[in-house]
Amino acid sequence: MPLLQTVVEEIATEMRSRLDRGEVASYIPELARANPAAFGLEVIDADGEVALGGDAETAFSIQSVSKVFTFTLALGMVGERLWKRVGREPSGSPFNSIVQLERERGIPRNPFINAGAIAVTDVILSGHQPREALGEILRFLRFLADDPDIHIDKAVAASEQRTGFRNIALANYMKSYGVLDNPVEHTLGVYFHHCAIAMSCRQLAMAGRFLAHGGRNPSTGLSVVPPGRARRINAVMLTCGHYDGSGEFAYRVGLPGKSGVGGGILAIAPGRASIAAWSPGLDASGNSHLGRIALEALTKRMGWSIFGP
Amino acid sequence: MPLLQTVVEEIATEMRSRLDRGEVASYIPELARANPAAFGLEVIDADGEVALGGDAETAFSIQSVSKVFTFTLALGMVGERLWKRVGREPSGSPFNSIVQLERERGIPRNPFINAGAIAVTDVILSGHQPREALGEILRFLRFLADDPDIHIDKAVAASEQRTGFRNIALANYMKSYGVLDNPVEHTLGVYFHHCAIAMSCRQLAMAGRFLAHGGRNPSTGLSVVPPGRARRINAVMLTCGHYDGSGEFAYRVGLPGKSGVGGGILAIAPGRASIAAWSPGLDASGNSHLGRIALEALTKRMGWSIFGP
Amino acid sequence: MPLLQTVVEEIATEMRSRLDRGEVASYIPELARANPAAFGLEVIDADGEVALGGDAETAFSIQSVSKVFTFTLALGMVGERLWKRVGREPSGSPFNSIVQLERERGIPRNPFINAGAIAVTDVILSGHQPREALGEILRFLRFLADDPDIHIDKAVAASEQRTGFRNIALANYMKSYGVLDNPVEHTLGVYFHHCAIAMSCRQLAMAGRFLAHGGRNPSTGLSVVPPGRARRINAVMLTCGHYDGSGEFAYRVGLPGKSGVGGGILAIAPGRASIAAWSPGLDASGNSHLGRIALEALTKRMGWSIFGP
Amino acid sequence: MPLLQTVVEEIATEMRSRLDRGEVASYIPELARANPAAFGLEVIDADGEVALGGDAETAFSIQSVSKVFTFTLALGMVGERLWKRVGREPSGSPFNSIVQLERERGIPRNPFINAGAIAVTDVILSGHQPREALGEILRFLRFLADDPDIHIDKAVAASEQRTGFRNIALANYMKSYGVLDNPVEHTLGVYFHHCAIAMSCRQLAMAGRFLAHGGRNPSTGLSVVPPGRARRINAVMLTCGHYDGSGEFAYRVGLPGKSGVGGGILAIAPGRASIAAWSPGLDASGNSHLGRIALEALTKRMGWSIFGP
Repeated sequence: MPLLQTVVEEIATEMRSRLDRGEVASYIPELARANPAAFGLEVIDADGEVALGGDAETAFSIQSVSKVFTFTLALGMVGERLWKRVGREPSGSPFNSIVQLERERGIPRNPFINAGAIAVTDVILSGHQPREALGEILRFLRFLADDPDIHIDKAVAASEQRTGFRNIALANYMKSYGVLDNPVEHTLGVYFHHCAIAMSCRQLAMAGRFLAHGGRNPSTGLSVVPPGRARRINAVMLTCGHYDGSGEFAYRVGLPGKSGVGGGILAIAPGRASIAAWSPGLDASGNSHLGRIALEALTKRMGWSIFGP
Repeated sequence: MPLLQTVVEEIATEMRSRLDRGEVASYIPELARANPAAFGLEVIDADGEVALGGDAETAFSIQSVSKVFTFTLALGMVGERLWKRVGREPSGSPFNSIVQLERERGIPRNPFINAGAIAVTDVILSGHQPREALGEILRFLRFLADDPDIHIDKAVAASEQRTGFRNIALANYMKSYGVLDNPVEHTLGVYFHHCAIAMSCRQLAMAGRFLAHGGRNPSTGLSVVPPGRARRINAVMLTCGHYDGSGEFAYRVGLPGKSGVGGGILAIAPGRASIAAWSPGLDASGNSHLGRIALEALTKRMGWSIFGP
Repeated sequence: MPLLQTVVEEIATEMRSRLDRGEVASYIPELARANPAAFGLEVIDADGEVALGGDAETAFSIQSVSKVFTFTLALGMVGERLWKRVGREPSGSPFNSIVQLERERGIPRNPFINAGAIAVTDVILSGHQPREALGEILRFLRFLADDPDIHIDKAVAASEQRTGFRNIALANYMKSYGVLDNPVEHTLGVYFHHCAIAMSCRQLAMAGRFLAHGGRNPSTGLSVVPPGRARRINAVMLTCGHYDGSGEFAYRVGLPGKSGVGGGILAIAPGRASIAAWSPGLDASGNSHLGRIALEALTKRMGWSIFGP
Repeated sequence: MPLLQTVVEEIATEMRSRLDRGEVASYIPELARANPAAFGLEVIDADGEVALGGDAETAFSIQSVSKVFTFTLALGMVGERLWKRVGREPSGSPFNSIVQLERERGIPRNPFINAGAIAVTDVILSGHQPREALGEILRFLRFLADDPDIHIDKAVAASEQRTGFRNIALANYMKSYGVLDNPVEHTLGVYFHHCAIAMSCRQLAMAGRFLAHGGRNPSTGLSVVPPGRARRINAVMLTCGHYDGSGEFAYRVGLPGKSGVGGGILAIAPGRASIAAWSPGLDASGNSHLGRIALEALTKRMGWSIFGP
């Protein structure tokens, strides 16, 4: 059995035996029902070799991990002009803070905090109906993962929409500064739905491969973005991908990554592998507790940290 | 002529011809006198090959670049206990902001903003006289750079001390929360003096080599820190090394780096090279304008970004 | 002619001749159309003597002046329990700041900033339909002013509702903390409509009489609130009635007062008079420029400051 | 026995029997030693009639109550130009907050928070030695109180100076913005010493009489400030005199007042009386717990609220 598969299986076994699991998100019933004992890990290396462990084939709510893909789409649509709508600095604040927006006149700090991802969604929406924009996002994910079986969990989307007062506040606040072009309900509708996409670790790791390999899928050879853009997306993931736990993730794991409140993390080992981890229990910063620990163990054992041998 | 030397020389030539140079720091006369047309670049690769361009042998005030070395020293003295005194998250604020300190009860966000570096200096000072602590810092730098000719510019230190009201405010504010152990004047005395150390690009790139090579100097084989610590120092440099321009530096350059208001930047290409750039003109975030542009050109042409091919 | 009438007329004449008029609010077309040259002043003393000057009989959009009356109504409904929903400290922030809400977990600083007035409206609404709550507010104002001819300007309300993104943000933000009980659209619907009530200086001064005379109308003898409550409402008007210009208004005018972005100000000289001033041009804090100057002149000439002879 | 004396004695008796006393300030040993059971109250009416209760003749550390008198002195020296150095809006923040200073570039919100009082002290100091400025402040207080027996408690001043890191931070922070003219140590030296003045309720009530009577002492007829200035000082006391408990004090007591961390409060009933209360236990906002309750009882029973009958 190759080394990578051994490492992944050992990590999955170890994670499943741990008793510290963090707290499952409970703000909507659909997320609260997630099994706190679940753990999945999938790694796809440069040659397309797949190593998987635990519940790597179980679909979960990707939530904010979707922001990597909407960010990629928006860059494809408007290029560097995107930076007029959103910054690219770490926020030093929780994911849903509104304070920073007031200080910076409605411009969110980066595309990965909620406000920034809403602004990015507004860019994607421009000139489309919500249904069309969502279709485009889904098609993009299915293409990247090479898997037509990726769907939106409508119950999750409906719950988020019903209880997402903080996000409604963020969007209206940005609208008051003219940062959003579309009707607030349209933008939020698309945002709540793309956060409600369900994917497995397998699908997520597949979808992230282009970021590990200069913007193209090394198996098909198809180019998604130019190499420079892939590097830059990774850079934003590294500095901003884990809210106010981004420094911690860089310090411990040493890979660009993006987490979601459903417990998923997509991590990229540039030139080496695309990685997806999932465990629903969260730490105090809202990032997957065991997901982060598993990724720390993986990079350590594989020597994959971008910060040195 | 090897590729690296060609690239470095071309970049130095191009930088010297540019008219956009940023603004030289003017808050003390000693820094204001720096030649805005100066530019230096030095790269030392894994084999110890040196490539230099421009004013790479001219000494300048390293200012906050010194914080990489005091941070390394403090980690060596107290290990992970350092994190009780200082965080490791990006601040999302200017280098000398005091707001964050109030919100977080005197604990600075990271070791590279001024407040954090003062807290780190306080750790180094513990149980020493200021003179002894400064001696230790200097000895460490001379050892790393393998060069006894590294000194403190006393006029710079005296000017900083005379006009450093903001830093005095930060230190007293932390003292009010019990974050500093030593008398405020002692801690600040050491801080102002280590920021006033003068080094050339050559010396700085030499001193940074251990960070590029798993904690040891690949020429002498001497180990400075364990490999994991070198990676972690690089991670903090990447997320926090350029104040509220850290995201920008990661996005454009793609290397861990630490800047100083004297116009110097130390950057690390893990496994590949230690790099020092210097140009006194600063951008709006207080980082060397041409230094950053030169490093962007260098990583692009050498393919050294940590974020991918 | 009695002194008061002379003073009021002189002030009205002087105000109409001034060239510094501030800026008319322009965020909705209905307010932007207000005549910048308009000025009205009405004073009703303890004996019911009326002195009026300028456009004292012209109806204008009372906007935030309505908050005095909704605050009074809510205190009547839930008494001191109101203070679980809203504070009574000056905010030190602009009228529509959201920063303070984040620091204090959704509890607005006082009933006169927008967030606080929305929370107060939510209290009034409890157990009612929006239409009923609005009916109650209107009936209360007509009773106080002893004038059935007080109406809501529906065009103003519709415009506010269409463009009030900041207020929608504030309301949803509070809802996310559980500070609002009713559906956000209901609470905001009532809020936007009571801000759109149109009244003249005459009607406003009549409606405010109970605050000047221990909670009762001295002409009819009818009691509106107990004396202690009237004093306390005045106290909140004094400390919080002019947003982050409240200290300035106390310093210059020396009376409790509440301003609105339509250019109206209700001011109370306790034991002496109820006063309404109106001029649409606003100062930098969003308070009527000439209204404040007129009130300063009036208190000075009448010796009515609550801060001494 | 006249009504006022009866009321004052009853209140003193009631206060001494209460078990809720707040927390005595403990940041320096000299204040921590204060007797938590102490309570004093003194009222001097327009005719010079004196009513006293409890420990009205015991000297205590007036602390921030001194800021009323330094503010008066500074207005006398530079008039309305004082407002270039300090604002006059309530701060909405604790007494020693530094956050507001960063937002407003070193200009303190008002003369009664610590930063503002330090700026006011700097104005008084201009062109003097610290010893001279302190002499002037002491002479002014002795003149106002008509009592030469008012002194600085040197042990208190020394303790404050030794442990006042937060105030040192505030002063250096303002200095970094150029808001202070004098050497920081000089300004802080005078500030720490005037806060350490010890006075009794009797002396304090005497010293405040001019504020109750249009700027002059009604017994001697001597004018201290013009009537308009007395009103304005009262206005600033009302809106800013109790830090972030100013709204609460206005709401409950209804008089301009200034508190100190030593437990003293000076309150002014314009046209009626000057009042001093003292009890060392503090509430959460740092204001005398029983002092405030006693003043609330006094204004209620005497009908002295400035907000109405």
